Amino acid sequence: MKVYGKNVFNELKENYQKIKRVYLSNNFKDKEIIDFIKSHKISYEIMEALKIKQMGGNNQGIIMLIDDYDYVPAENFYQENIVLMLDHLEDPHNMGAIIRTCEAAGIKSIIIPKDRSVTINETVYKTSSGALANVDIALVNNLNKTINDFKNKGFFVYGTAMDGINYKKVDYASKVLLVIGNEGKGMSRLIKENCDEIIAIPMQGKVNSLNASVAAGIVIFDLVNR
Amino acid sequence: MKVYGKNVFNELKENYQKIKRVYLSNNFKDKEIIDFIKSHKISYEIMEALKIKQMGGNNQGIIMLIDDYDYVPAENFYQENIVLMLDHLEDPHNMGAIIRTCEAAGIKSIIIPKDRSVTINETVYKTSSGALANVDIALVNNLNKTINDFKNKGFFVYGTAMDGINYKKVDYASKVLLVIGNEGKGMSRLIKENCDEIIAIPMQGKVNSLNASVAAGIVIFDLVNR
Repeated sequence: MKVYGKNVFNELKENYQKIKRVYLSNNFKDKEIIDFIKSHKISYEIMEALKIKQMGGNNQGIIMLIDDYDYVPAENFYQENIVLMLDHLEDPHNMGAIIRTCEAAGIKSIIIPKDRSVTINETVYKTSSGALANVDIALVNNLNKTINDFKNKGFFVYGTAMDGINYKKVDYASKVLLVIGNEGKGMSRLIKENCDEIIAIPMQGKVNSLNASVAAGIVIFDLVNR
Repeated sequence: MKVYGKNVFNELKENYQKIKRVYLSNNFKDKEIIDFIKSHKISYEIMEALKIKQMGGNNQGIIMLIDDYDYVPAENFYQENIVLMLDHLEDPHNMGAIIRTCEAAGIKSIIIPKDRSVTINETVYKTSSGALANVDIALVNNLNKTINDFKNKGFFVYGTAMDGINYKKVDYASKVLLVIGNEGKGMSRLIKENCDEIIAIPMQGKVNSLNASVAAGIVIFDLVNR
């Protein structure tokens, strides 16, 4: 897949072997990046500025062709204390922002479903601002089966919905699997029923909804900063 | 301006006089909305589904032409206890998400600058999911002058940056003006210097940045849920 921009390039430096090719605008001027490309013998190509511009997004004159995202098995997360599960998110910007939030909060493990969900694409890569390089993502067939597996490994499962207990008052277990619902529909019924506890963010307005990544951020930072 | 979708229509019901005209797809089927349009004698026009689709966004077959957004004077906010100021945000999705967050948190007053900032446009309207109808926005010429005006009215000014004190440990004054910085650059230097206190969200990752609307959500919900 193609990923875009200087920030993403800089985040890829540690794993520069993943970069198959770099496309640079003929007016690209970041000397540090150009030196890195040359000294690490990364394959590159200089193209007309206009052509680069047309290749997508706000790319700042640099586009990287990289290997597709390497998912990890969910079993890798059994030794973690906090794991996040995203129940069929639809918006790649939300997923990118949540990955960024996890990274900043010190959560390194995220589970997403294979079907009817956004997976790791270019937009997620871009909006995660490089955080994706420091977080592992597992892609699973069946979220409920995965929840049961984690329960068997000692995890308590916390879902987020409107009708739960105040997130500030939750007495979290030592091993937490936190489930964030879909932007519009929330968590699916079966998953909600499979949670050990449902937690909610109390709201005062008439609209009573938060952007999914904002809601996730509020719960996650409350959880990790106790 | 044009605004899109069923949620936004439903939020406009209370102020339906603002709707100048509704464009409906010929396969639009929401009977409740159609009845509302007819019973309130709102001007409407039925168009080919394809044409409506081309008119923008994920409009769900309904587009409303409404008056431009009515800003209020910042002086209207002097009697509030919490006022938010956005220091030159660039991304309308962030602004929409922050408006939604404010509404859900019970904050009704937001100040934005006239220049070099996103202002209330169609994307903000859409991403605020109707919250805009329950929040007032003031558009000011000079943020620093406005900060001084609020200081003179007894407000304490809290800025957000990386090098502040832990947001959890802030002992907020009774009247709070909270400033959120630009997505990439943060707060401008002069504004930062004009703040009474700088607060930060401690982060653990390598990337060390949160999406602006997520960061605002974390600080805002901590502030209002004490």
